[in-house]
Amino acid sequence: MSGAPGRPSRVTVVEVGPRDGLQNEKSIVGAAVKADLIRRRAGAGLPVVEAGAFVSPARVPQMADTAEVLALLEPRPAVSLPVLVPNRRGLEAALEAGAREIALFVSASEGFSQRNIACSRAESLARLSDVAALARSSRVAMRGYVSCVIACPYDGPQDPAATVEMVKGLVDLGCGEISLGDTIGVGTADSVRRVIDRVARHLPRDRIAMHFHDTYGQAVANVLASLEEGIAVFDSSVAGLGGCPFAVGATGNLATEDLLFLLDGLGIETGVDLAEVVRIGTWISGQLGRANASRAGRALAAAAGGQTGSGPMAKG
Amino acid sequence: MSGAPGRPSRVTVVEVGPRDGLQNEKSIVGAAVKADLIRRRAGAGLPVVEAGAFVSPARVPQMADTAEVLALLEPRPAVSLPVLVPNRRGLEAALEAGAREIALFVSASEGFSQRNIACSRAESLARLSDVAALARSSRVAMRGYVSCVIACPYDGPQDPAATVEMVKGLVDLGCGEISLGDTIGVGTADSVRRVIDRVARHLPRDRIAMHFHDTYGQAVANVLASLEEGIAVFDSSVAGLGGCPFAVGATGNLATEDLLFLLDGLGIETGVDLAEVVRIGTWISGQLGRANASRAGRALAAAAGGQTGSGPMAKG
Repeated sequence: MSGAPGRPSRVTVVEVGPRDGLQNEKSIVGAAVKADLIRRRAGAGLPVVEAGAFVSPARVPQMADTAEVLALLEPRPAVSLPVLVPNRRGLEAALEAGAREIALFVSASEGFSQRNIACSRAESLARLSDVAALARSSRVAMRGYVSCVIACPYDGPQDPAATVEMVKGLVDLGCGEISLGDTIGVGTADSVRRVIDRVARHLPRDRIAMHFHDTYGQAVANVLASLEEGIAVFDSSVAGLGGCPFAVGATGNLATEDLLFLLDGLGIETGVDLAEVVRIGTWISGQLGRANASRAGRALAAAAGGQTGSGPMAKG
Repeated sequence: MSGAPGRPSRVTVVEVGPRDGLQNEKSIVGAAVKADLIRRRAGAGLPVVEAGAFVSPARVPQMADTAEVLALLEPRPAVSLPVLVPNRRGLEAALEAGAREIALFVSASEGFSQRNIACSRAESLARLSDVAALARSSRVAMRGYVSCVIACPYDGPQDPAATVEMVKGLVDLGCGEISLGDTIGVGTADSVRRVIDRVARHLPRDRIAMHFHDTYGQAVANVLASLEEGIAVFDSSVAGLGGCPFAVGATGNLATEDLLFLLDGLGIETGVDLAEVVRIGTWISGQLGRANASRAGRALAAAAGGQTGSGPMAKG
């Protein structure tokens, strides 16, 4: 029944929509809309909202205005607003913009590292050492991302040992929490539990976050498997914002609404107001001119709007 | 890790798309397309394909031509083609059309029973007694459905005891397998495990099937929870055909492709060719002029079509 060993009673939801979500959306939205998106999410009780990235505007145009977005946000004590930085220049810009928390990323696979950031996995950690040193001396908190922990679009399935190496590297740099990403969404319950089990031999489970993409419809089930492994931090994106650049038309990030529906159903506390998240999802989907990719979001929005019907339905 | 007690090594997938799926689709498709849909599914290795229903054509126009569909199908020894029948007249028509297996349905909730079939739960079982008697004397196999086992759109959450009562009634009528339906898709892992646990006190687990709708994005996770409870039969629908008449725009049945992606990932045998199911899903979605509701179906179709991209993607 319920209460398998290790299942947490409380979960932290890390909202990545404004960064990991939007950067994969074609429609560019303005800084005011982004700031509003972040403000409303924080207002819904989401304790961590990834606010943007200080990356090359040429490579990721959607993130070009992160400094402007941060400037529009009034300080809010209980909410963390990490920003992604790929290098020292990015960190300097982030510090100048007042960021108090950053995210660093590396890949568990060589192929993805080479294609995404044009260096080997080992080089990527080496390049981050001066970034981390400046972050530490600036007393800026660091979160680490490891991508492709299950499989890589170029190299195929990944041995969990590769993920463990990168986790150790990020911990050595000073990262507090490490988010393990199934970047292409091919993980299923057992492969997910396997990588968590391996990483947990080197890092306490309360410092491991899981980051799922719903490309193959497995994200919610993978959260369930992770909960049974004692994981209590999950990344997600309102309305499932974000696509998958490796399969055009495919689904993107785990939707925050679907995640919250599961956690609420299991009686796990999050402090987040699902109804408000549904309203935000409807609103930002409209801003982007795209369908809401959250199933729970669509169903709850329809119910809230009174759009119920009762056609012939011969059973269940 | 894997191999929790009771997880089956083999699962039977019951394809309900041609009936439970299509009846909730607005576009009416012809008998030839339906027969082709059933034939192709059987060809993909699906061992049970619900072929239609002998119900009121006025209430469910999509099912009006089930006899014609059956007439178009050549016999195929290894494949079961059950049809839904609501009453004796329906069964007589089914027998005349050569059906060798039928499905009966009842609701765990009073409200749904009254609204859907205009009688109480007790009356629904009583009305089915002569249907079952004729089926038994005609040596036609019977499958039972219980709808609203988690919650009812009218009555709210349901006590598992109500489901147990209806399961016992269907077993008394002679049903071999009973499919428990989360008709409105609000179940999460613990509520699903609870109802299975209760029913399994009265019926062997190998006679219990689970039937999930993905309205709130929980269907695949609920399959995972059911597997851990030793359940080895799941209903699903290619391309997630079927809507939810109680929330317009919401997602319908669990998609066969998403289910197979999970089972394949867990190393559970099904005998079904996922790649062929993906092709069928793409084809029938085109016939219906609707988007493919299967996430795995969309992603695998995109990959098969070579539609891969590699935009900037700063991690996972």
